[in-house]
Amino acid sequence: MATAQVMYDFTAEPGNNELTVKEGEILTIINQNVGGGWVEAQNSKGECGLVPEDYIQVMCVVFELQCRCCFSQVANGNNPWSPGGGYPSEPAGGWNTQGHPQTQHNAGITDIHALRQDLCTGIYLLVVFCNSCVCICRFPFSKTPNPELYLLAKLPPKGKDRLPIYVTDVGPVWLYPESPLDCVVADPKKGSKLYGLKSYIEYQVTPNTTSRPVNHRYKHFDWLYERLLEKFGSAVPIPSLPDKQVTGRFEEEFIKMRMERLQGWMCRMCRHPVISRSEVFQLFLTYNDEKEWKTGKRKAEKDECVGPLIFSTIDPEAPELDSVEVEQRCELFSKFTKSMDDGVKDLLNVGNIHWKRCTGPLPKEYQKIGKAFQNLSSVFNTSGYQGETTLTDALTAAGKTYEEIAQIVAEQPKKDLHFLMETNQEYKGLLGSFHDTVAGHKAAIDKVKEADKMMLAGKITTQDKVTMGKRTSIMSYSLQAEMNHFHSNRIYDYNRVMQHYLEEQIRFYETIADKLKLALSQFTTL
Amino acid sequence: MATAQVMYDFTAEPGNNELTVKEGEILTIINQNVGGGWVEAQNSKGECGLVPEDYIQVMCVVFELQCRCCFSQVANGNNPWSPGGGYPSEPAGGWNTQGHPQTQHNAGITDIHALRQDLCTGIYLLVVFCNSCVCICRFPFSKTPNPELYLLAKLPPKGKDRLPIYVTDVGPVWLYPESPLDCVVADPKKGSKLYGLKSYIEYQVTPNTTSRPVNHRYKHFDWLYERLLEKFGSAVPIPSLPDKQVTGRFEEEFIKMRMERLQGWMCRMCRHPVISRSEVFQLFLTYNDEKEWKTGKRKAEKDECVGPLIFSTIDPEAPELDSVEVEQRCELFSKFTKSMDDGVKDLLNVGNIHWKRCTGPLPKEYQKIGKAFQNLSSVFNTSGYQGETTLTDALTAAGKTYEEIAQIVAEQPKKDLHFLMETNQEYKGLLGSFHDTVAGHKAAIDKVKEADKMMLAGKITTQDKVTMGKRTSIMSYSLQAEMNHFHSNRIYDYNRVMQHYLEEQIRFYETIADKLKLALSQFTTL
Repeated sequence: MATAQVMYDFTAEPGNNELTVKEGEILTIINQNVGGGWVEAQNSKGECGLVPEDYIQVMCVVFELQCRCCFSQVANGNNPWSPGGGYPSEPAGGWNTQGHPQTQHNAGITDIHALRQDLCTGIYLLVVFCNSCVCICRFPFSKTPNPELYLLAKLPPKGKDRLPIYVTDVGPVWLYPESPLDCVVADPKKGSKLYGLKSYIEYQVTPNTTSRPVNHRYKHFDWLYERLLEKFGSAVPIPSLPDKQVTGRFEEEFIKMRMERLQGWMCRMCRHPVISRSEVFQLFLTYNDEKEWKTGKRKAEKDECVGPLIFSTIDPEAPELDSVEVEQRCELFSKFTKSMDDGVKDLLNVGNIHWKRCTGPLPKEYQKIGKAFQNLSSVFNTSGYQGETTLTDALTAAGKTYEEIAQIVAEQPKKDLHFLMETNQEYKGLLGSFHDTVAGHKAAIDKVKEADKMMLAGKITTQDKVTMGKRTSIMSYSLQAEMNHFHSNRIYDYNRVMQHYLEEQIRFYETIADKLKLALSQFTTL
Repeated sequence: MATAQVMYDFTAEPGNNELTVKEGEILTIINQNVGGGWVEAQNSKGECGLVPEDYIQVMCVVFELQCRCCFSQVANGNNPWSPGGGYPSEPAGGWNTQGHPQTQHNAGITDIHALRQDLCTGIYLLVVFCNSCVCICRFPFSKTPNPELYLLAKLPPKGKDRLPIYVTDVGPVWLYPESPLDCVVADPKKGSKLYGLKSYIEYQVTPNTTSRPVNHRYKHFDWLYERLLEKFGSAVPIPSLPDKQVTGRFEEEFIKMRMERLQGWMCRMCRHPVISRSEVFQLFLTYNDEKEWKTGKRKAEKDECVGPLIFSTIDPEAPELDSVEVEQRCELFSKFTKSMDDGVKDLLNVGNIHWKRCTGPLPKEYQKIGKAFQNLSSVFNTSGYQGETTLTDALTAAGKTYEEIAQIVAEQPKKDLHFLMETNQEYKGLLGSFHDTVAGHKAAIDKVKEADKMMLAGKITTQDKVTMGKRTSIMSYSLQAEMNHFHSNRIYDYNRVMQHYLEEQIRFYETIADKLKLALSQFTTL
């Protein structure tokens, strides 16, 4: 049984079988298979309960690195997570690679972070690939797939699920469906499992194709995200899901916000011509019953055509691309994403400051102005002078109007700035996820450049070189289709969000003007 | 020749014959008769030039207190202003009152502050009244006239300038003219005197009665203020003129502000039924030439019917007032002015904070939002993607709109808050000046209460007591007419200023909404 140290304070929500823990406390893990980001643990007083997995750090685990293909052990060790945190790093003396036919191993471990969140057993089995088995590579733990590995891989026979790319005015584009897919995420409901031991929130997802709602928990969205990342991540930047969050997850505000963000994420996935027609995505949206869902899940998890293999399903209907031109385009795009990232951050920054002012000092000031008017009105009422009431009524009304304005001002950011911020936040994520896709493509291009040297060294044949060129061209088509998809979506999204922002701003200013007009009408100069 | 110490730094304006001086520096006063708030001085280096009188402190002067009536010396001394500042206070051993037939003197010196600003000779002659001459009292230096002294004074024969008071629904009121007097203060022009040695600003004042403009400098307004205070101050609270200010007095902004405030002050004076028909006020507004002005000035300065004697010209057309009821009314009014003063200060306080926000952080934020939009637009322009320009043009326009909004926001307080603040500032002054009038009336009421005691002590006769009662009643009528004048003006002014404020606020919100509508029209969702 593993022991774990608590990294952050966690306060149990009453009636939820949770355990309150303090930073630094040592727990015994009783059950790591509760799921949903939770473990069952016991504290030093013998109290048991659920603790969020992210809040603790397992102190002693044994791990093995095993080649998923030939099952040979690539490395092993223990305590990969030092008490101070951090990922497994190569131990002094190197990984234990005894018993494996190859000497250069653990090449596939690029980002092991995912493990910690996905696996929860006493012994961690890190499944990687040894270099010799890289041909049917699978990179479930890597967020940066190494697509250049596909360049010389032995490919499976072409399946029926082909992803065509056409060349249009704007350049290579995916095949877009005639009627776009869309879905509505709505109606969050509390559910429970483990005989009421654990509560969770279930969202209703209704696609426009069937108009039949299916239920999904956050963890299902997370599962879908992992599948999409695994299957399409090498070619299609998959934006992250909205943040996992444990505390306050039953609060209305939080549920609303998460739902809205899941909706945004689903919309973006629906709008993607490759994602939207994929089997796993369709399963998620349209499964008929629990059995179909489970079967579909298992099938998706066993899908072999993942990682860089996605490129083997892409069919550009065009001649091989000029690599110099492609490189220039990619460089331009990289620069573009970098400056857009800066621009977006800038806007988010200003937006945050503005949000704080609009919800903090500004409405307080309007409130004070309102109070000052009303105060004067009360004073005037004590004058004992005749014919005072018209003025005092009007002053009171004006004061109340400014109090209303205070409220309108305070609530406005939720109505307009919110969507502007959310869209930009989403784009910040999108731009980040693009980075890996572009980097993978660049690595492939670099590999092709080395082709002659590799030929001379006898590492590849002339045929290999031709294959590498062709496959890189496919990757370039794919990347350009993605770039164009990104641009057209960006233009649509920014037009839409700016329209929404300005519309709401106009409504805001007009509402206030109307209220002031009413207040004005009460004053009279004799 | 007097020496003086510099109290505040003063920087000479080039070409104006001024002398730059530093705090603490010792100057020799060469000419104290330059006038207009200036003295000619020489510094330790031998440099000569003009220095504002308010910025220096005369270190050694001889002063005499002389009865204006019998010319006997009431007191004398020197160095009335200690180096640390302050007003003349009774020296140890008391004032020197030798040579005067009476023993109890200097009763009239209640506030000698005015002296320091008005007289500029090596020897200060403080003109006061000895108690025995109080019957034809004149209190040119007192801002708090002692109206109770009028109660038993020997009055001059009734003149033709009577001030009637009528009793209406709201109580006692002054006789209001059928068509109200008004004037426009405009067209400030730089003039010069002393063969170009000194420059000043001259304003054009045009009354609605003659529509013929007359020219006046600030010091003329100040002269008018002093005359009105002297003549009517016991009965009519005379609000102070806008602050004297020396540095920056030729700056456009300052001149505009002073003109606006002089206009406000003149309007208030024009609206007062007693002030507006007075000879001195009419002279100020309608003199035909320099000669008429000078003759009129001299006449006004020699006017004997000043201070509490003004009550001798008031004719209430009604029976003697019940002093208990009057006292209650006065108490109510005192409470009212106190709470209104609080309310006004509160509003001024909030207004100041709001002003700072509107002209400081808020427009900066709108500017940043505008810049962020324009920045994104520039980034989008580098995408190399077709069909980008509609969005980038719209984004740039939206960005510029927010920059314009920044400017509108920053300039708005000048358009609306400004007048709200100015009116309240004016009322703060008015409420302050009312305090003395009410206090004077209260002193008279208290004197009447002592009448029986004084009769027993043989200090007054039965006839005196009757006279005191009648005269106090006249003072009460006058005060109530003033209160009612104040209330009706207040109701008018606050209605007007609130209307103005709200109208400008509406225009502000509508202008922004219109600008945003224009910006919105450029966006398009394909």
